[in-house]
Amino acid sequence: MKNTNKAKPAADQVSELTTNRLSVYLRCLNLLDAAGATTVSSQVLAEQFHLNAAQIRKDLACFGEFGVRGVGYYVKDLKRHLRQILGLDRQLHVAVMGAGNLGLALADYPGFRQEGFAITALFDTLSAKVGRRSRGGVPIYDITELGEVIKRDRIDIAVIAVPADSAQHVLNMVVAAGVKAILNFSPETLDVPPGVKLKSVDLTVSLESLSFYLARNEAGDHEEAGDARA
Amino acid sequence: MKNTNKAKPAADQVSELTTNRLSVYLRCLNLLDAAGATTVSSQVLAEQFHLNAAQIRKDLACFGEFGVRGVGYYVKDLKRHLRQILGLDRQLHVAVMGAGNLGLALADYPGFRQEGFAITALFDTLSAKVGRRSRGGVPIYDITELGEVIKRDRIDIAVIAVPADSAQHVLNMVVAAGVKAILNFSPETLDVPPGVKLKSVDLTVSLESLSFYLARNEAGDHEEAGDARA
Repeated sequence: MKNTNKAKPAADQVSELTTNRLSVYLRCLNLLDAAGATTVSSQVLAEQFHLNAAQIRKDLACFGEFGVRGVGYYVKDLKRHLRQILGLDRQLHVAVMGAGNLGLALADYPGFRQEGFAITALFDTLSAKVGRRSRGGVPIYDITELGEVIKRDRIDIAVIAVPADSAQHVLNMVVAAGVKAILNFSPETLDVPPGVKLKSVDLTVSLESLSFYLARNEAGDHEEAGDARA
Repeated sequence: MKNTNKAKPAADQVSELTTNRLSVYLRCLNLLDAAGATTVSSQVLAEQFHLNAAQIRKDLACFGEFGVRGVGYYVKDLKRHLRQILGLDRQLHVAVMGAGNLGLALADYPGFRQEGFAITALFDTLSAKVGRRSRGGVPIYDITELGEVIKRDRIDIAVIAVPADSAQHVLNMVVAAGVKAILNFSPETLDVPPGVKLKSVDLTVSLESLSFYLARNEAGDHEEAGDARA
């Protein structure tokens, strides 16, 4: 197939760490915009949000010339560019597999809606759940309706929030239904065929970074432990 | 106060990105150990788990000399060292604020237990929930019992899983009860006093990295899109 988009780097040439940082920059710009800031330099952005100014400039340079000499970045412009780079300039449709506590929490997670993701369907196997809705109003379908609903709702991303022992089976069903991007919350290591992107979220990593902080500060100097970085 | 731990870098000199990577290395070593591997080189570790070999060596070098020339790393040894660096060589006690879907899901999240975190308490304000337990058996207390339970259970880390509009209030209560490390799942920007470590988890970042992948691959070359990186 012909590459119709030569100017931009392909998805597999940009690391996930970079796209994660772009997401963080976008979140910071949203806050600056809401606070009424019209321009910001990489230095100020770095200082306010505990980021690295050189890294910001390097990350953004992969995608174009967004800075203006003597001004920095125009907040609204850079927001718009980042949303475009991240593919957020159109609505993406998301289905959540599993209507247990985690699935229900994710279906109603306010951050997803704020960034323009539309969570349109939950799936479960329990007949007691099928036909009901999450608190936020997302309908729960029987997993046998998967293929039909994924086509009808034009689902772009499936979120796996089922118990570990059925995660691979559910992933296979979602892939067979044509979904090309999967966000996995199960602790299992899952396999996807070529052409499908799998991203696994390991919530343990966040707790471990707090564990590290506690261990160091108990061993070290408590007076300098203050660090309100979010 | 005297710094009793000069050899090791203090918590605020090691970036969260580094501790996040150490967590990822530990997860990889767990998998290698379970698969029966006794040694691994930074190159093999990098190739198998799509990491960066130079980065692995650099991160580990901050904490000591773990590699053996011509061998690489002994898997069990490096696991033990990483658990020690991350403060996982003792049990940490965790309380979850909010017994809604997210709080209940986090209280029973299997990954936390696997790494040795003990989730001992959930807190809520709804009398219908207080006195009950999560599916995994974590008791739900009334928030008025917070101070008492935190002291009794020796809570090290509090997880904030309450609605955005009460997140700062609940955080203040937890800090007043003496908790020094907080994991926040609310989309609000929260303030903590000096000496308290706050880490916010933004689940939107994960969805946005999939959005980026979909946008690039629709624009670009589908044939080379296959990427099973987790």
